[in-house]
Amino acid sequence: MAQPLRLGIAGLGTVGAGVVQILRKQAAMLEARTGRQLVISAVSARSRTKDRGVNLSSYAWEDDPVALAKRDDVDVFVELMGGEDGPAKAATEAAIALGKDVVTANKAMLAMHGQSLAEAAEAQNCVIKYEAAVAGGIPVVKALGEGLAGNEITRVMGVMNGTCNYILTQMEATGQGYNALFAEADKLGYLEADPNLDVGGIDAGHKLAILSSLSFGTQVNFDGIELEGIQRVTLDDITAAADMGYKIKLLGVAQMTGRGLEQRMQPCLVPATSPLGQLEGGTNMVVLEGDAVGQIVLRGAGAGAGPTASAVLSDICDVARGYRSPVFGQPAETLKVATPALSQRPAAYYLRLSLKDKPGALAKVATVLGEAGVSIDRMRQYGHEDDSAPVLIVTHKTTRADIDHALDAFESTSVMAGDPVALRIEEV
Amino acid sequence: MAQPLRLGIAGLGTVGAGVVQILRKQAAMLEARTGRQLVISAVSARSRTKDRGVNLSSYAWEDDPVALAKRDDVDVFVELMGGEDGPAKAATEAAIALGKDVVTANKAMLAMHGQSLAEAAEAQNCVIKYEAAVAGGIPVVKALGEGLAGNEITRVMGVMNGTCNYILTQMEATGQGYNALFAEADKLGYLEADPNLDVGGIDAGHKLAILSSLSFGTQVNFDGIELEGIQRVTLDDITAAADMGYKIKLLGVAQMTGRGLEQRMQPCLVPATSPLGQLEGGTNMVVLEGDAVGQIVLRGAGAGAGPTASAVLSDICDVARGYRSPVFGQPAETLKVATPALSQRPAAYYLRLSLKDKPGALAKVATVLGEAGVSIDRMRQYGHEDDSAPVLIVTHKTTRADIDHALDAFESTSVMAGDPVALRIEEV
Repeated sequence: MAQPLRLGIAGLGTVGAGVVQILRKQAAMLEARTGRQLVISAVSARSRTKDRGVNLSSYAWEDDPVALAKRDDVDVFVELMGGEDGPAKAATEAAIALGKDVVTANKAMLAMHGQSLAEAAEAQNCVIKYEAAVAGGIPVVKALGEGLAGNEITRVMGVMNGTCNYILTQMEATGQGYNALFAEADKLGYLEADPNLDVGGIDAGHKLAILSSLSFGTQVNFDGIELEGIQRVTLDDITAAADMGYKIKLLGVAQMTGRGLEQRMQPCLVPATSPLGQLEGGTNMVVLEGDAVGQIVLRGAGAGAGPTASAVLSDICDVARGYRSPVFGQPAETLKVATPALSQRPAAYYLRLSLKDKPGALAKVATVLGEAGVSIDRMRQYGHEDDSAPVLIVTHKTTRADIDHALDAFESTSVMAGDPVALRIEEV
Repeated sequence: MAQPLRLGIAGLGTVGAGVVQILRKQAAMLEARTGRQLVISAVSARSRTKDRGVNLSSYAWEDDPVALAKRDDVDVFVELMGGEDGPAKAATEAAIALGKDVVTANKAMLAMHGQSLAEAAEAQNCVIKYEAAVAGGIPVVKALGEGLAGNEITRVMGVMNGTCNYILTQMEATGQGYNALFAEADKLGYLEADPNLDVGGIDAGHKLAILSSLSFGTQVNFDGIELEGIQRVTLDDITAAADMGYKIKLLGVAQMTGRGLEQRMQPCLVPATSPLGQLEGGTNMVVLEGDAVGQIVLRGAGAGAGPTASAVLSDICDVARGYRSPVFGQPAETLKVATPALSQRPAAYYLRLSLKDKPGALAKVATVLGEAGVSIDRMRQYGHEDDSAPVLIVTHKTTRADIDHALDAFESTSVMAGDPVALRIEEV
């Protein structure tokens, strides 16, 4: 039997407490599966006295996570504090400097500093594992980096923020607007301390940046993501999209193209009958596409103590088994700097226009679209509301530039009763 | 840079040829990802002259797979011949005897001889990897054995035979009967040489037996599976189930219960709106449930050269990276012999009865069910056809024994115009 693997756990929120709980409750099972005892040497958190529903008395306590990371009786530093900089990063770097392996759930830290951390870790022959950083309990980092290792990845997509998906699906289910559902999500404790991390798409963007790097052998580049949150998605659009057979999702898409690496996190339409379209509430879904495997869809809880702890345990078990590989699937020094694609691949678009109730308005719209080179696949006009008439259009495949030309041109017509809306329809 | 990993590939059907193709085309990518060159030393197949669309001239040829497995220049024996006994097993055993690792896609061999092969391999410090043996390209062996290693697995379910799912979904889509669709599947080349492997549920049962072992720490036990194929599923049942909001799937379920290990592979009803219910055509889906992670759903191509080769490559890359663990997730000598559960957990059942057109028939049915302790959740009676009237019943949760009592009792009434049908409704 190999030596016990000694863990130092920093951060004892619901996830940290969940990890401690599993390590205690399932000690025999984990030892059978990894061939080693998994023991907690020490823990660290902000408050020593808080009741976390789990007995911590047999572990050493460190107020300072950096001191925890440096302890001689810690082989693996388990970082569950969060935050892209500050103590999480300082402690992670301290662990690596001493040649210790790191398990983390910290998507922000990896999205912002993944390359430098990976370089430091690999120089020290350490591993950094982060299954919990992406899509909670879904073992997507493993699926992508190992399960599909024989594939050239062609596209990665995902609904990876449960709060946004909850708000969007509840808008449709209840007929309430964005603000009401945002308030409800807040009341239910679904929002991060800075809600913009959720609804602004930043949290999901962090996850996408990590998956991109794993998929395409590129340095993680969060700033290269075209990012748009769900704050401007209206009930009108959700209803209208449903009427045309679509759902609106905050969808992340990463794809390597001849024009560079395309990374987008934005509200998109997807067919209502597709797996992504059918995803309701806080559940996450990741779609992986490879040249050999075709399309793999993974679905599960994207957050919560149990699912996230499950992912952390998966990494700890891998370390215990001696599974060692480069942080982003190939040596950090070989990861390319990807040029962000300056334009999105062509797609069909959904347009919602509000036209003034006057003769020739619809003809004017058609003319503008035609002049912009945008051709119409389907159009629906609804009964007049007050003095305006809503018009829904699904275009044939076109470029975002042509759509933007059309939107500009609409403004200089006299037939628009409100701002036009244009959303990409992703082929899934 | 580590030494090259030298492969011997036995079996050059579409999967074997696909593996060779990926190893040739993606050599640089695979080396970047594993840190080692992956080289093919030798290959073996039945016919040396057959054109497989891939250049084999630079590899040594062996007519005998056992000789291939024994070659000094082969580190990993890649077994893609199939068949539970015969050359596949002989060559696998020969490889293990010489301390070589094995990658195989052979579900039958593992389902029937998994325990003895695992014991032999572990005695020799060899690994046997078999991602391709279960659900084709879906990395489910990895997800279960590694990704959910921190979980006590509570249930595993899956639609794991694409041919059966194709036949069942096409029956509903086209209104054709089982025999017509069986013939079509045959014409399309979807059936194994022995079609009973597919439609009899044996192939899917092999996969379930493997997942059970990984899930519950038990010795693989194919014979412990309650097995029923799709041959007796009628168009009437598919239509009636759809009418009640269900789909009929050949569903594998494994669950550890207080009464022992329950392993079933049988036609079941699942809600039409569930991920399993929505699965169409040849696609596979596996549902993994763990105490921490909740429910994880994995979906993808269950067969075909590309997806299966993708899974084989995943295993080869794991071996190249030095990922070594026991064959069934914990040492073979610690795997328990599971007592098969003698009865299935209670469930709701779907009943389709054909009643004679005479007064009191329906009352008689209700009486029989009541006397058997089966209570009715929903019932639908349809217009008379000829001299009989179809009646559909969804029961409340009950035992199979009570259902069987009721079915027996129906026979001794005088109101049945045909054999009653009873199918389990699985909660998913």
